[in-house]
This record gives sequence, C-alpha cells and structure tokens, in this order.
Amino acid sequence: MTKPLNIGLVGYGFMGRTHSNAYRTVNNFFTPGYHPVLKAVSARDAVKCQAFADQWGYESIETDWRKLVARKDIDAIDICTPNNLHKEIALAAAAHGKMVLCEKPLSMNTADGEEMADAVEKAGVANTVWYNYRRVPAVTLAKQIIDSGRMGKIFHYRANFLQDWTISADLPQGGAALWRLDAAAAGSGVTGDLLAHCIDTALWLNGGISNVTAMTETFIKERKHNLTGKVEKVEIDDACSFLCRFENGSLGLFESTRYARGHKALYTLEINGEHASMKWDLHDLHRLQYFDHKDEGIVRGWRSIHVSDSDHPYMKHWWVPGLQIGYEHTFIHHVADFLQSLTDGKPCAPTFREAIETQKVCDAVLASAKSNQWANV
Amino acid sequence: MTKPLNIGLVGYGFMGRTHSNAYRTVNNFFTPGYHPVLKAVSARDAVKCQAFADQWGYESIETDWRKLVARKDIDAIDICTPNNLHKEIALAAAAHGKMVLCEKPLSMNTADGEEMADAVEKAGVANTVWYNYRRVPAVTLAKQIIDSGRMGKIFHYRANFLQDWTISADLPQGGAALWRLDAAAAGSGVTGDLLAHCIDTALWLNGGISNVTAMTETFIKERKHNLTGKVEKVEIDDACSFLCRFENGSLGLFESTRYARGHKALYTLEINGEHASMKWDLHDLHRLQYFDHKDEGIVRGWRSIHVSDSDHPYMKHWWVPGLQIGYEHTFIHHVADFLQSLTDGKPCAPTFREAIETQKVCDAVLASAKSNQWANV
Amino acid sequence: MTKPLNIGLVGYGFMGRTHSNAYRTVNNFFTPGYHPVLKAVSARDAVKCQAFADQWGYESIETDWRKLVARKDIDAIDICTPNNLHKEIALAAAAHGKMVLCEKPLSMNTADGEEMADAVEKAGVANTVWYNYRRVPAVTLAKQIIDSGRMGKIFHYRANFLQDWTISADLPQGGAALWRLDAAAAGSGVTGDLLAHCIDTALWLNGGISNVTAMTETFIKERKHNLTGKVEKVEIDDACSFLCRFENGSLGLFESTRYARGHKALYTLEINGEHASMKWDLHDLHRLQYFDHKDEGIVRGWRSIHVSDSDHPYMKHWWVPGLQIGYEHTFIHHVADFLQSLTDGKPCAPTFREAIETQKVCDAVLASAKSNQWANV
Amino acid sequence: MTKPLNIGLVGYGFMGRTHSNAYRTVNNFFTPGYHPVLKAVSARDAVKCQAFADQWGYESIETDWRKLVARKDIDAIDICTPNNLHKEIALAAAAHGKMVLCEKPLSMNTADGEEMADAVEKAGVANTVWYNYRRVPAVTLAKQIIDSGRMGKIFHYRANFLQDWTISADLPQGGAALWRLDAAAAGSGVTGDLLAHCIDTALWLNGGISNVTAMTETFIKERKHNLTGKVEKVEIDDACSFLCRFENGSLGLFESTRYARGHKALYTLEINGEHASMKWDLHDLHRLQYFDHKDEGIVRGWRSIHVSDSDHPYMKHWWVPGLQIGYEHTFIHHVADFLQSLTDGKPCAPTFREAIETQKVCDAVLASAKSNQWANV
Repeated sequence: MTKPLNIGLVGYGFMGRTHSNAYRTVNNFFTPGYHPVLKAVSARDAVKCQAFADQWGYESIETDWRKLVARKDIDAIDICTPNNLHKEIALAAAAHGKMVLCEKPLSMNTADGEEMADAVEKAGVANTVWYNYRRVPAVTLAKQIIDSGRMGKIFHYRANFLQDWTISADLPQGGAALWRLDAAAAGSGVTGDLLAHCIDTALWLNGGISNVTAMTETFIKERKHNLTGKVEKVEIDDACSFLCRFENGSLGLFESTRYARGHKALYTLEINGEHASMKWDLHDLHRLQYFDHKDEGIVRGWRSIHVSDSDHPYMKHWWVPGLQIGYEHTFIHHVADFLQSLTDGKPCAPTFREAIETQKVCDAVLASAKSNQWANV
Repeated sequence: MTKPLNIGLVGYGFMGRTHSNAYRTVNNFFTPGYHPVLKAVSARDAVKCQAFADQWGYESIETDWRKLVARKDIDAIDICTPNNLHKEIALAAAAHGKMVLCEKPLSMNTADGEEMADAVEKAGVANTVWYNYRRVPAVTLAKQIIDSGRMGKIFHYRANFLQDWTISADLPQGGAALWRLDAAAAGSGVTGDLLAHCIDTALWLNGGISNVTAMTETFIKERKHNLTGKVEKVEIDDACSFLCRFENGSLGLFESTRYARGHKALYTLEINGEHASMKWDLHDLHRLQYFDHKDEGIVRGWRSIHVSDSDHPYMKHWWVPGLQIGYEHTFIHHVADFLQSLTDGKPCAPTFREAIETQKVCDAVLASAKSNQWANV
Repeated sequence: MTKPLNIGLVGYGFMGRTHSNAYRTVNNFFTPGYHPVLKAVSARDAVKCQAFADQWGYESIETDWRKLVARKDIDAIDICTPNNLHKEIALAAAAHGKMVLCEKPLSMNTADGEEMADAVEKAGVANTVWYNYRRVPAVTLAKQIIDSGRMGKIFHYRANFLQDWTISADLPQGGAALWRLDAAAAGSGVTGDLLAHCIDTALWLNGGISNVTAMTETFIKERKHNLTGKVEKVEIDDACSFLCRFENGSLGLFESTRYARGHKALYTLEINGEHASMKWDLHDLHRLQYFDHKDEGIVRGWRSIHVSDSDHPYMKHWWVPGLQIGYEHTFIHHVADFLQSLTDGKPCAPTFREAIETQKVCDAVLASAKSNQWANV
Repeated sequence: MTKPLNIGLVGYGFMGRTHSNAYRTVNNFFTPGYHPVLKAVSARDAVKCQAFADQWGYESIETDWRKLVARKDIDAIDICTPNNLHKEIALAAAAHGKMVLCEKPLSMNTADGEEMADAVEKAGVANTVWYNYRRVPAVTLAKQIIDSGRMGKIFHYRANFLQDWTISADLPQGGAALWRLDAAAAGSGVTGDLLAHCIDTALWLNGGISNVTAMTETFIKERKHNLTGKVEKVEIDDACSFLCRFENGSLGLFESTRYARGHKALYTLEINGEHASMKWDLHDLHRLQYFDHKDEGIVRGWRSIHVSDSDHPYMKHWWVPGLQIGYEHTFIHHVADFLQSLTDGKPCAPTFREAIETQKVCDAVLASAKSNQWANV
C-alpha cells in the first residue's frame, strides 16, 4: 500500500523530461512507500505544455505557476525553470506548504539560497536539490569507499566538466533551450551550470572548501540575443577554473568550459588519498577506477570497476551484473531516495540548506575571478 | 491519437521485467502510432504473478497461459518463458490470431522454429524475436556503416560472449532462475543462450554462414538439480566455440562461455574490412570503436565513438550528447520498432522466419561439436 | 671480469638489427658473466653487408655463411635468415661445435626441427630459439602469476596476432623483405610467422596442446613474384584460425591474419582461470590486465598493471617506475638470459628441443586446415 | 665518415645512465654526421665512478669536474648533477670553449639561467637543455599537428605530472638519489623537477605564458636529512598547481605532485582547439589521442594513434609499425638532433636561452604561491 504523492512540475524542458521519467518509473524498481502521481505541469505556452502533459501523462496543465503552487491537490512542487525563477517559485511553494524539489543550482547567489532554505525550513516542508550525480552508482560507491576509511588522508581532489557545444560564434544566446547562455536567466555560465555539479560532489566526498583563486573567460564576446534579436554582449563565463584548499588539508583543482572540442559532457573527478585513489567520468558513468596501494606490488594496478553488481549502490534494483544503466537513472534514484526519506521522516540530501554550500563556493569563485585575488568561501 | 495494443505477457522473470519496462516507457520517447496496454500477465504461481502485475501495472493475471492466449481482449502475446515452452505457446497464440513476440532463441531447434514460422505466417500475425542487441545504438550504427559501403570487402568477423557466473560447483541446475542450466528447459547451454545473440547479429551484419567446425565443453559434470533434489549429470554446454566461413568469403570465429572469470556479460564483436574495421562490446555498449584506413596516415587511429549524438541511431529520442543510455533501452527500441512496423504494415526484424537462420547455425554448431566434423548450415 | 662471446650473425634484416642492438646493449644493463663481441656478419651482398657491419660495429664480414660457421674465432652462430635456411646453417654450425641461436620458427616442419635439435644436442652446444615475447616483462609476469597458483584451474586460453600489411593486391611476394609471403622461403604464411609466437607463449604458460581443428585462407590468390617477375599463385596462408584442447583440460582458440585493418602487430592473449584472469597485448606491451576474483566484491575489477616497477620481471635493470621500455628490450632480455645460462651451465629456454613443440602444433594446424579434420598434435 | 664528438659527463645518476645509453646507441639508428665518444666521466667517488665507466665504456674518469672541463680531449660537457651545480659547471665549461648539454631545469632561477645563457653565447658554443619529452614521437607529432593548422584557435591547455613516491613520512631527504627532496640541492620541489617539463612542452606547443596564480603545499613538514642525520624542515614544494593565461588568449591549468597514489610518472597534457583536440600521457607514451571535429558526425570520436609508423616523427629509424619504443629513446632522439644540429650549424632546441623561458614561469609560479597574488611572467 504505497501512498500517492501529487507532483506539480514547473517547466517542461530537458530537466522536466528527466524528472517526469523518474516519477513514472521509480515504483517499478523501488518500493519507497510512496508513488508519485503526475498531477499537473505548468508552463506559459499552453499548447506546448499540453503536448508535454500528453506525452508524459500529466493529468492537467497550468499556464501560471502561481496557480499551480496554490492548488490543493498538489503535494510537491518540482522546479525545472531557468535559475532566475527558482527563488520566487520556491518561496511561493513553501508559503503554500508544498514540498519543494528544485533543480540545481539552487539559486542565483548565496543570499537568495539562504532565503529559500529559511522558507522551506520555516514551512517545515521536505526539500531537496537535484544534484543528480551523487546518485550515479559509481559516485555513490566512491562515497562508500571514502567512508570506509580505505583512502586514508586525502591529498588531492580534482574535477572538471568539459563540453564543446558553444564553440560556434553563430550560436545565439537567450530564450528557450539557450537560456543557459543568458546571464539574466542563468546568473552565470559554466560556474553555475557545470562547476556547481563538481562542487556539490566534492563537498559531499571531501568536505568543505576554505578558499579559492579563480579565472574566468568569455571567448565569444558578443552573440545575437534571441529575445531582443540584437547582437549583445555575452555576460556569462564560457570557462572557469579555480584552485582551492579544502578544510581537510587537501588541495583542489577545478575546471569547466564549453570550449573543449571532443568532450560532450565530460564530468571527471579524481581523489588521491594516502592509501588509495579513485577516478570517475560521466562519459562512462558505470565505471569507477580504483587504485589500492595495499594490493601486492607485482599485481597492483588501477582497477576498472564495472559498477553493475547487485552489491553496488542501487544496482540490485536493476538488471544483472554486466548490464549497465545510464544517465536517466540518477534521477530515478533521487526520486526513490526522496520518497524513502518521506517514509523515514528524514531529509533527502542535498537539502536547500546543504546546497547553499555549493552556492557559497560559486560566489567565491566568481568573486575571485573578478578581483584577481584569493577569496574565502 | 495512438491506438492501443493489448499485451499478454507469459512469464515474469528477467525478460518479463525488461519487456514490461519497454512497454511502459516507449510512448514517452517515441511516437510509433500505437501504445501498449499491459492487459494481463500469466504465470503458474498466482501470488508471485499478482505481485508482478502490481509492480508493473498489469490489469489482470492468468495462471494458465492457455487462457491468456484465448482472451479476446489480448492483441499480442509476449513469450518470456524458458525455451522449451516457446513453440507450444506460439502455436496456440497464432491459432488464436494473436501477434507473437517471442524471446530468443526462437526454438529448441530448427525444425521447431520452422513450425513456429509457418504458424504465424499462416495466421498472418505480426511476429518478432527479441534479439535485442541489434538495437543497441552502437550496433545499429555498425550496420549503417556497413550498408554505407565504408568497410569494403569483409575479411574477418569475430564475436564472443563471456560470462563467469557458473564457475562454482555448488551452483545447482534447474528451476526458477536456473533453468538456463537445465538442458530439458533450455535445449542447450551457452550456444542457445549466448552464441545465439552473437550469431543473430553476425547474420544481420555480415550475411549467411556456410559451414562450421565447433567444440563444446561441460566443465562441471554434475550438479544438484533443483527440481529433483538429486545430483544429476549436466547436459548443457558450459562453453562453445566455432570457426566458420561466411557466404561473402570472410572467416568467422565465435566463442562463448560461462567460465571466463572477470567477464560478467561481455558480448564483443569485431569486423575487419578492406577499408575499415569496427569493434563493440556490451560492457561499454554506448561506444563503437571504428578505424578508417582512409584517414590521413599520421593521424590515423581507432576512433572511440561515444554513440550519444542526435544523429546516431535512436539517440534523438533520448537526452543530449554525452549522456548515455543503457541495456534496457534496447528493448524499448525493439518495442518502438515493432509498433512502428504495425503502423507501416511491414515486418519487424528479426521475424520468426528470419530467426530460424540463427537456429540453423546453432544446430550445425552443436552437430559439429558432437561429430568432430565440419557441418554445413 | 666478464668473458667474451664471439658472435657470428647470418642475415642482416629486421631480426639482424634487433639482435645486434641486443648484443651491443646487454652489458650496460645486465651482468650475465659474458659480453658479446660482434665478430662477423654474413650475407651474400658484400656491399650491403659491409654497410650493416659499419652501422653496428661488426669487425668483419663474410659473403658465404659456410665460411662464417667454420671460423675459429666465432663462438656462437645467430641465424636470422629466411626460414628455409635455418636447418642447413644450424646443422653446419653444430658440426663446427658452435653454439646456435636461431630465429623462430625453428624450422620448416617438425621433422627438420628434430634433426636440428638432435644436431645441437649431439654437438653439446648451447642453443636457443628467439621466441622473444616470453621476455616481455608483462608476459613473464603472467608466467609468474600462473606459477604462483593464483589462477587455479584454467578454463580458457585465447590468443590472436592481427596485422594489416598485405591487404593491397599490388604488394608483390618474394625476395628481400617480402620473403615472408613466399612459401618456398617461409614454409607457411601467418601460421609460422605469427601463430608460432602465440603457440610458443601458450605452451609455456598453459602446457601442451592435444588436438586442433583449423581453417586457413588465402585472400589474394596471385601476386607478382619479385624473384621471377611473374604473377604467381600465392601459396602461403593469409589467415589461419584454430580451436584446440590443452592437456590440462582447458579450451584454446587462436587466430592470425594479415588482413585485419587497424591492427599493425596486435598480439593479444587472455587466460581465464578459476580464480583469476589475465590479458595482454603487444600494442601496449608494458601493461598486464589482471582480474582477481578474491578481491572484495564492491571494489573488484580488471587491474591495469603498468609493468615498470623494480619488482617486475627484468625491470630493476632499467629506469624508474612509470617509465616504459619497448619491443627491442625483449631481445636484450633474451641475450641476458642466454649469457647467464652459459655462466650457470643451464639451458636457455626455449631450446631447439622445446621449440619443436610449437612446430608440432603448427604442423597439426596446417594438416587440419588441409584435411578439414581434427588433427592430433 | 662521421666525426667524433668527445663527451665528458658530469654525474652518473639516473640521468647519467639515460644519456650514456643515448650516446652509445644513436649511431646504430641515426646518421647525424657525428658519433659520440665516451671520453670521460666525472664524480667525487672514484670507486663508484670507475664502476660506472666500466659499465658504460667511458675511457677515463675524473673525481673533480673542474679537471674534466679543462681537458683538451673533451668537446662537450654533459651536466647531470643536482641543479645547484648546473651554473658553476656550465660557466666553467663555456669558459673552456666546450659545448654544454645541461640537464633540466637549466638553473636554480631565472637570473642564474641568464648568466648561463650569456656565457655559452659569448663562448659561441653549442648548447642545449635536456627537456627530453619534446622528443617523444607522440609529442613531436602533436607539435606537427599544431603547426599544420589543424587545431585552429586554441582555447585550453592543461597538463599535470603526478607521482606517488614520497607519500611515506619515513623517506629521508637529501644526498644521493634523494637530492630532489633537498631544497639546497634542488632549488624547488615538484615545480623545478616536474612542472618544468610540463611548462617547457607547453611553451613549445602553445607559446608564451603571461601570468599565473599558484598554490604550493608541503604535506610532510619534516624529514630526516641524510647529510646531517637530523630531522629537518622540508623546504621543497610537495605539490604545486597553477592557473595561467597564455599570450594567444588560451587558458592554462597545471598541476604537479608526488602524492597522487597510483601514478608513478604520469605526465599528461591536453590541448583543446577550435577544430581539434589532443591528449597524451607518459604512461602510454607511444599513443596520441586526437579528436577532429571535421570528421563526419556519426563516425566522429577520439582517435587513439599508435605512434609507431614510419611517417611518424623519428619512427622510420626504429622497427616496424605496431612495435613501440619507450622512455630512453627520447634521449637518443635528443642526441641525434644535437649531433645533426652541429652538422647543420644550427641551434638544438631548447637552447639555454630558450630554456630560460621555463625558468621565468617557474619563478613566477613560486612567487605567486608565496604571495597569494597573481604574478606576471
């Protein structure tokens, strides 16, 4: 007897699809005590919104998210809009006592994030931020390995997120699928879009970051803006890299860009500890590379772990060893954990409060890049 | 306005799950003109069958597949039983005018397969066999590359399917999930279970096989039988390899085993042509390795193609470049193609008739292994 | 005080260069008790032979190998000629009481090989065959791992040697560097040239082979012959594959070709044992892939061992960990071991007698391919 | 008729061995017009020095480098000492009109380097610095690809050099093989030892660096000092990373450490250009990864180039395609190029003057790490 959880989705873009798929699929593979009901989806364009609802089985649509958050038949609001709308929707949803699941990054900046965290906490509603890569089985396994003590003292953490889709100067900015290039909608460029993922995972795996020195660049200075039709200055960062010190004494190095030819969505991370090291990358997300210095010398080497066995995180719910799952499953895992957290009465990480930590690092990174000085987080 | 297609599923094991997931998901990503309705599932154990129906949303259950195939509200029978039941169910389904989707291998032998093909053709019902690996995007891409003429004359084709799950002598045979070790239920061991996949893909990519010389082995001679409780002789082949000649003049080499430590489900294939070569393996199924001799010499090398772009087979229906799909999607693709074939009034490959070709090769392989002589297909 | 060992080299082709380099270099890295002296090189073309002698520091030349083997100042004859001359030179060298180092394959067939082994044993002279791949550190490490018992019972052995240099129909056969395509000089095609390497390693690592079923093919039926200037039938095998049973009960699968586009010299081998598996390939010869089932489940995976540590075979003589050696070093290792064997008064494997075993398998393979029957070794 | 070049080597450590091997081997594979003669080696310990001379064939020894540089029978001085002796020896050698080949880094700092460059230029003697990785064939190929214009505008350059040999706190510093941990002898830690390599290659491939922001760390604060026998503060940098801007507008990111478990000597570099990208790493130094966006979309992927064909840099001098060379060959190539440069009357890059550029970047990096400010180069 699972309980229904009525979902109201705001936004039907790429993330709207991944979340909808997760809601529809989760109960075939997991038994978390609740089952999502696709109650309504909201977007300004009624025709497109209805088509999306038909495709995914939403019972109804709204063309104003304010109406959606006010509906009595909705239990949880899922925010899949551009970043600049996160705060207003979250505050309204909390005010109506709705649970809130918010796409990352949580907010345009730390101050907004704190306001949002205050709101959901004051309302006492369940909340979580969709940093989905925590729930790639190989990444969750990395966390297990760290927690098991196998790594020993950590010396280095490095991560990058490399893409190549904005190299053409003919690509416009703004509107629809291109809002990520528009500073007004996105807040920042790769920092909030890509580095935020790297930072969230890093904080989870390796603890807090103390201070940073950063560098940003905008390679294409002007692009046509889809909303105005004019060629306008590009205000986002095309690339951002930073060095940092973690609170545990380890050194960090992060990089992100949309100008790395040959990398479609290459999020990689590596951790070097006293006894062991690990590497992972999103292009082959079902593998974790692991090196254990305790192995006997002559047969020591990096192990390529095909994370598909039933004792690997989340994998007993899927197929049989050797058969891989993919990107979309990270969202299914997040929904499963969120639903289970409701059953257990516990928070589902990262909560809004936890996700502010990533926001703080992003703010420090952007401040450092602007001032050419080290910045404290 | 998509049309409903009422599905009656026989068997709720591993394949029952993959098919059910495909039926539930296909219309969120594809628009093939029909949408499957999970009308009923059949299995002898009513309690377990009902639990499966609840988990996946089947409207009803049957404990006798004969009742299922006779139900008027069923359009298509999907056979997910052990191999020894395929024929009887398929013949009954065809007799009731139902479409039939049959798990691979089609039959226990060529003669049975021909009887089945005759039946569905006589009944004039749509039919297909679930050789799902044809619809891994990287494998479909390999087919496109061959059809484009890039390969030139083919010299070599090699494939293997390596597993390691039966190495322990303590593993029993027969019953439930272990029917694959029971010759009475499975017909053969790795030949029908694993090599059949390799052969189906090979025939599709490289054309007919003329003759074979084969070798089989059963490493563990006796195992406890779950159905009798006694230690009994193991009658299946634990390993099988064969050499062959293709009709196009190329040489083939195939191997399969469940005793290759370190390989969970490693289906690999490689094709060497006059101008180009290709490699693929199931453990990283979203990649195709491609070598093109026409590339300029100093920058020539094997290309690792991350098959996730929108112009790759099936991929425009999924996420964005760099984000991989997995094993289960091959079944979704098969359902999408099957439904589209109904809309188009065309067969969905491989049909029963086409799948007999794989059966013929399997029969020749087993005969050769028994006689220690080359055998014609 | 190392002792001199006066070398007389017959043939100055590719192998003449690799051996000469080994003789010149061995004492800088190893201290095997002897140091080779490059006394003389023999070849029919005096001008080319002198140029080779100058390049490599040979003290003198001969244009008739019969004179070379008779010279009193020569201790050891090194045979680097086409295969059809091995026997005659070896018999003559042994008759003059010279040690003999013979390029592989030892002989044109088993009978010749036995005559040669009888001769060197009767003469009581040190002898060895240049199956150099045994002395790739990663391959030697594989042997250590097997001998340590880590593998348990062996189930499977597979190897192939894939090249792509004879795909063009314009390539002539015979003479100079192309004697490998001329059956009169080479005896066979890929069987003696490439599979002989795979078989030698296999016998060393996995023991004797009982019987085989084989298939050969000659894709280009006629080629211009460099010695006659005429288009002549190609008598060698372009490709050869075979299945076999080892005496230890394991199954073998071997393949070789010069028509595998994209593979320059890809010798790969894999061994699957009860507890562990190993893989190696010549294109990245400094790495051994190792899978150990005894590793804890969640961190189990194929280990990529970079065989460059000081406790790896031969490696303490070279540089520092992480810095790789290459192809030529296998010959240096062979010379070091040969010289050490003289110091120790022990044979240097593989001796002529031992190398006959490979010849027997090659003969059985060719016989099976001709008869289309299984052949005993 | 090649001319002799009489070599006087100072220091017989790891680099003394690599250089000696290069001198002994170069003329077997290259014909650069000169042949090195191993005239003398110098080191303070006469017994060890003589043993080295015997092992490598040096005609004589000196226990005082001052005598060596003054000898009339020496043409070229090769400096393989700890860094703090480079300047004094180089100045003395130049004063005696000797050619000078100096190990990297050229000097303890930029000022010293300039003094050295002035000295060799004033003396008019040939000079070069052993940044050997420029002459890995795959790296030289990368340079050819850049020069060919295939890359287009460069956006990103990243490199790291990761080792793991100083993680144990029990490892002492100073003396013999451990001088690299002693600031007095080495000047700096990983910056001069490892990053200098990365920087030299980067300047060669991607042009000048404008400014940097850097971070260093010394993880083990105190170690026993071999020369004093006391536990002393460790003054070198165990790890160093920096961000930078290149003069061509691209962004750089560099990292080096001796605390990255699992990496023995992993020098990796990657370049992302408008049209293409390249990657290389020292652990598999015979491969270059190359991605070309101009390849047709469906078959586009990273190409793994096995740099062993005769049209690849330096490779026509070695074996046949598919057979790899290793680390030591980079020094042979450098000697071949140096000797050829004498024949051609041209400088052999990098000259002392050119190597100062790397020194300037190292100085800026160390200054930035100290001041926590961006530093101009």
